[in-house]
Amino acid sequence: MAKLHLCSPAGFRASGVYAGIKSREVPDVGMIVSDFVASAAATFTTNKVVAAPVIVGRKHIANGRLHGIVVNAGNANACTGKQGLADARMMCHLAGIAIGCDETQVLPSSTGIIGHLLPMDKIERAIGHAGHALGRDREHALNFSDAILTTDLVRKEAATTVTIGGKAVTIAGVCKGSGMIGPRMAVPHATMLAYLTTDVGAAPIQLRKALARASDLSFNAVTVDDHTSTNDTCVLLASGMAGAKLANARAAAAFQDALNDVCQSLAYQIAADGEGATKVVKIRVKAAKDEMSATAIARTIANSPLVKCAMHGNDPNWGRIVSAAGYAGVAFDPDRCTLQLQGVTVFRNGKPAEFNAATLSKKLDAKEVDVLLDCRLGKGQAICFTCDLSKQYVTINADYHT
Amino acid sequence: MAKLHLCSPAGFRASGVYAGIKSREVPDVGMIVSDFVASAAATFTTNKVVAAPVIVGRKHIANGRLHGIVVNAGNANACTGKQGLADARMMCHLAGIAIGCDETQVLPSSTGIIGHLLPMDKIERAIGHAGHALGRDREHALNFSDAILTTDLVRKEAATTVTIGGKAVTIAGVCKGSGMIGPRMAVPHATMLAYLTTDVGAAPIQLRKALARASDLSFNAVTVDDHTSTNDTCVLLASGMAGAKLANARAAAAFQDALNDVCQSLAYQIAADGEGATKVVKIRVKAAKDEMSATAIARTIANSPLVKCAMHGNDPNWGRIVSAAGYAGVAFDPDRCTLQLQGVTVFRNGKPAEFNAATLSKKLDAKEVDVLLDCRLGKGQAICFTCDLSKQYVTINADYHT
Repeated sequence: MAKLHLCSPAGFRASGVYAGIKSREVPDVGMIVSDFVASAAATFTTNKVVAAPVIVGRKHIANGRLHGIVVNAGNANACTGKQGLADARMMCHLAGIAIGCDETQVLPSSTGIIGHLLPMDKIERAIGHAGHALGRDREHALNFSDAILTTDLVRKEAATTVTIGGKAVTIAGVCKGSGMIGPRMAVPHATMLAYLTTDVGAAPIQLRKALARASDLSFNAVTVDDHTSTNDTCVLLASGMAGAKLANARAAAAFQDALNDVCQSLAYQIAADGEGATKVVKIRVKAAKDEMSATAIARTIANSPLVKCAMHGNDPNWGRIVSAAGYAGVAFDPDRCTLQLQGVTVFRNGKPAEFNAATLSKKLDAKEVDVLLDCRLGKGQAICFTCDLSKQYVTINADYHT
Repeated sequence: MAKLHLCSPAGFRASGVYAGIKSREVPDVGMIVSDFVASAAATFTTNKVVAAPVIVGRKHIANGRLHGIVVNAGNANACTGKQGLADARMMCHLAGIAIGCDETQVLPSSTGIIGHLLPMDKIERAIGHAGHALGRDREHALNFSDAILTTDLVRKEAATTVTIGGKAVTIAGVCKGSGMIGPRMAVPHATMLAYLTTDVGAAPIQLRKALARASDLSFNAVTVDDHTSTNDTCVLLASGMAGAKLANARAAAAFQDALNDVCQSLAYQIAADGEGATKVVKIRVKAAKDEMSATAIARTIANSPLVKCAMHGNDPNWGRIVSAAGYAGVAFDPDRCTLQLQGVTVFRNGKPAEFNAATLSKKLDAKEVDVLLDCRLGKGQAICFTCDLSKQYVTINADYHT
């Protein structure tokens, strides 16, 4: 089977073109178009500072229907006042002309620097080109996935198939995210930029429910710098062209599992490509008082710069992990808990465990580090993904703008 | 007037000696001794993982009286189980012998790596030496202030005099803190290691009230990495030997102001000596909905690695500051607010303000950067101090342990 991509679900075309917003000559304006009006659901940032495309996108998706998505990278169109709102609407208007639909059937997204007006002359030309460049093959899907990247080093895509009602249903997604990654666990859920397509038939309310759950288990469990963006957006479009519907609980569960898989793969890729990252740190908390406590502990550990630096240095400095758990603001008793790094017990019942630091340090020198904290307080569990903190992170973020 | 120091308040002696816990040959065990039993108050970490000396110290100060303080650096005696508790009590016992008092009249502190038992043979010898080495002059005070340092590059001291009831009262303090600095705003207040002496006469309850307020305005407003330590301790000893008492509201207010000054100076020195810091970033939030909101916004901005990297790069990337304010979880309306960097308006009423980026970047290349966010929502205000995030931070923390 050929590798699945964003346009593998029946009924979708995509494109990515260079508008001249990014300094490197790589795609920076992209479109996804559904052949017919699609069922749609989205989740957006919970930041109180909301970028113009998010304000416009929320309105356009309110009725659960979309015909297309238009995205630019290199400029976030955030903190840009009334002109920014007009520009976001104009992006939809121009995409609507290319698609042949009303501007209210298009969802806009932008990502990049905050506080600069979009170069609308470049964007207008690029959207025209992107409309002509739409296609259904892998190359077109990849052009779109490249068009949404900013400080990302690699494109991020995932896809799967699932049989529902005897029919093969495909779910595919692409996303971007490397810095300013700290989605908030609030409802509605915050995410980074992610676009998902499927050919299942589903009502908007079914998609909303499935997307909320999948977000919780994926994008909401990844953090690079805990900085919630003004532009976070995740959209799921369903064309219905597979001939299968979410007609019963079994179908919904099968779809949910497959959607979770796609979203978790994308979220993992974001952690792996976190700014300056050399490894993924997977933090598993089990037997916390409840799920909320487990999540708070996992996230507090994941966000500690001291923990992230220790992971960068392959340093089994477990005191930083246990002390981070202690200030998560939820129930935690060091005298009951056990901590394992890469399967090696380093702390048990309030006391250090014997281990060979040199051997463990070698084990920490891996592309993925597993941190397992068993709290022995209850049944709450959570997983959070982060990356290490390197000098490269400072290089990237001290010189991004000027 | 000679420069004031920790032993300038009448009735205190101090010392610092090398026990061999630190790898560099600098003092690592110190004592402060009051000539007579002193009134005392302390605040401790709110981390659920509490180091042995904090557990012991809380008990010993419960009656508001102390005769001395014994501290070691290089080893935190945290996550060390029952043996750790016995070792902390033994430190008090040995110091009590040197002072000539009961072990329950001594408060112990430790700072350094978590999860290692104290080298008690070295500590025992060192406490004996420290008892013999006690003195009242500046050199002895400096030996103590050096003995409490870990990754700090400079010693931190502050002192002032205030006239109370016609008498000159002196307040002096030393502290340490460079990494794992993120005291929590909870009650009881968390702080880093700080030791304060005064010769005013005061009841323990008066000291507790004054210290809680001073902590809020100083140590609780500084963050380097938001990582609340297991060992944070702040102790205030009052000898009463100045002949002045906190006899009325006017005396209490004068003492409070002077104590605030000393604590704020110490807290500022911690931000300035934050791990890898090249500058202090002073974040002032005004006209927030209330003081809690102002504090949350200031602290969220102060903890954003993206903001801290931008400050390191002299980058007027104000979008990171406004977006951090937006995810503080409290009321915030970008369309009402104004942001100034070094006095230059960069954002006003939801829109970018015109400014010369190159000129502002030069202004950001300073030892102190002033960030002023006017929220225009209410009367809440707060100040938070942090430092920039440099590659040196990563170097220090990726290689600290192994």
